[in-house]
Amino acid sequence: MDVSSVDEFTLIDLLNGGQQTIAFQRAGGVETGIGDDAAVVRASSDSRWILTCDTMTEDIHFKRVTMRDADIGYKAMASAVSDIAAMGGTPRYALVALSMPKSTPVEQVRAMYDGLYECANRYRVVVAGGDTTSCIGGVTLTVTVIGETEPDKALLRSAARLGDVVFITGFTGDSAAGLEWLLGKNKPSEEWDDDPELKQYPGLIRAHCRPEPQIQAGELLRRSGFCHALNDVSDGIASEAWEIAAASNIGIDLIEDRIPVSGELLDYASKQGKDPLDYMLYGGEDYQLIGTAPAEHAVELQMKFKEAGLPLYLIGYVHGEHSGVRLVRSDGGAVPLAKRGYNHFTG
Amino acid sequence: MDVSSVDEFTLIDLLNGGQQTIAFQRAGGVETGIGDDAAVVRASSDSRWILTCDTMTEDIHFKRVTMRDADIGYKAMASAVSDIAAMGGTPRYALVALSMPKSTPVEQVRAMYDGLYECANRYRVVVAGGDTTSCIGGVTLTVTVIGETEPDKALLRSAARLGDVVFITGFTGDSAAGLEWLLGKNKPSEEWDDDPELKQYPGLIRAHCRPEPQIQAGELLRRSGFCHALNDVSDGIASEAWEIAAASNIGIDLIEDRIPVSGELLDYASKQGKDPLDYMLYGGEDYQLIGTAPAEHAVELQMKFKEAGLPLYLIGYVHGEHSGVRLVRSDGGAVPLAKRGYNHFTG
Repeated sequence: MDVSSVDEFTLIDLLNGGQQTIAFQRAGGVETGIGDDAAVVRASSDSRWILTCDTMTEDIHFKRVTMRDADIGYKAMASAVSDIAAMGGTPRYALVALSMPKSTPVEQVRAMYDGLYECANRYRVVVAGGDTTSCIGGVTLTVTVIGETEPDKALLRSAARLGDVVFITGFTGDSAAGLEWLLGKNKPSEEWDDDPELKQYPGLIRAHCRPEPQIQAGELLRRSGFCHALNDVSDGIASEAWEIAAASNIGIDLIEDRIPVSGELLDYASKQGKDPLDYMLYGGEDYQLIGTAPAEHAVELQMKFKEAGLPLYLIGYVHGEHSGVRLVRSDGGAVPLAKRGYNHFTG
Repeated sequence: MDVSSVDEFTLIDLLNGGQQTIAFQRAGGVETGIGDDAAVVRASSDSRWILTCDTMTEDIHFKRVTMRDADIGYKAMASAVSDIAAMGGTPRYALVALSMPKSTPVEQVRAMYDGLYECANRYRVVVAGGDTTSCIGGVTLTVTVIGETEPDKALLRSAARLGDVVFITGFTGDSAAGLEWLLGKNKPSEEWDDDPELKQYPGLIRAHCRPEPQIQAGELLRRSGFCHALNDVSDGIASEAWEIAAASNIGIDLIEDRIPVSGELLDYASKQGKDPLDYMLYGGEDYQLIGTAPAEHAVELQMKFKEAGLPLYLIGYVHGEHSGVRLVRSDGGAVPLAKRGYNHFTG
């Protein structure tokens, strides 16, 4: 049996299950361990630290036709920072581990680090260390980010409750459409500027190459005190809503007409003869935040977001016991949504 | 210019230099940034956290003929934990990022994680999270470790002073000899048990495959209050002593007769017709601690180590301004030692 035949959560459990007791982890200061977006550990009596790491590897997460060097660095930092946002945390420190062939041009690595620092500086993350090694395969970039929050304030997947509404902080599907568009063009990123066609969907390309972790939204959700469960959309709305539903043991209904969609995605999908909803539900790597909040505070939460100049869309609600995720169509009919998102090993 | 044409420190500076100001790093809570074994950041008024990560990649750091699967995991954890020891810290948490081909057998990954947890549990490190991804090349394993110390207690490279003696916590060279021996045999690790010849140097093989980070020694050095500079021997004594000399702006004389050597290394080197000193000075990956302490406290420090059942060898002394590292031979003559250790990109 090879790793491509098991799903990611099963694999994680196979590797880590039974290796350390919960009691040992608790005694060591871990409050939330493997299984959420990031781990939460006790730093001091009034502070908790959030730990996460994220890896991007060549030809799996990026190719020369889907990303510029600076994008690779930017996105590696952004996706790790997004895990902190998904806990409602504030990012503080990063460590960067880069493996690359000995033949890699120095200018190329420097461009990757320029992008990496551009993202770090934007979100006020201090790059405190790292490791650079050579390797025989392609480039592998692992970014570890350490964030901070107050005790009992981390926003977990398992906190959704009956009577909650489901919200999302922005458009989804754009990243997947951008990736598909770039793969279809199949043009080395150095030549993008010379191709007028590629200027057609700048928003989709930006969504794929320069995703913005929703740190400000996550902090607002944490400070509001109104947020229950939270996830970042790294594997599509359907998959992330499923994770919340399963971890919280509740059901989720998403209302099709309420899920926000970008103009570029509508245009792109129609030209491809596809349903934009496919990108939105199953695309992934959008790094918007999806979560739940008590219905009675929904309006107040939306007001807070409006004041901060941030969007917040109410797209569904929590009901009953765990029965997965359904999509309520405009005709009122509800269809169950498959759990699938992007699976890294079988995909 | 490719990355193989610049040395590791130059490369690190090329990638990170000028990207974030010292003021920004300080304001973010970083007390020691890129350049020592690990970063030190402010966790609370009475606690500092130590951040480090270490990568091992297939065919560069390990091959099927130099390491068993469980060794790969063990050593990846051990080398990151060793960076915490080199700061005199106590390891607390780890994050594990693994990239591997989709065809990797699950049992092989599980064996790697068994070794990884064996090391983590031995040093009471909680594995709090990680990331598993596929890749097109070989296995890449990055371990991030977070340790703890008190304010102003981290043991830096730059703290050696005139009047210090130089110490080391154990044998060096064994790991390099073990690696050479295994490469010479060129036998897949699954078949090691069937080869009586390979049982000849169990200590050398253990030193290479199962290095022990010197956490207990590092904590003792920190708590003693007598340790000035400290490094772990990841690139050979010569290179590590050079780093201390350069960072502290002092000169170091190492006394050949005082550097401890294992019986197995003596035997192995003599059979290879080589000088054991070559392995000891330039070998690397021994993860012993090399450091300096005021001469007037040297005996007391040795007593403390004796009480704890740990070895500590005085192998040299600090003198004058920075003039590199010399080796004092048994005839009293002193020869300058080359700065070289193992360079990852040019090597």
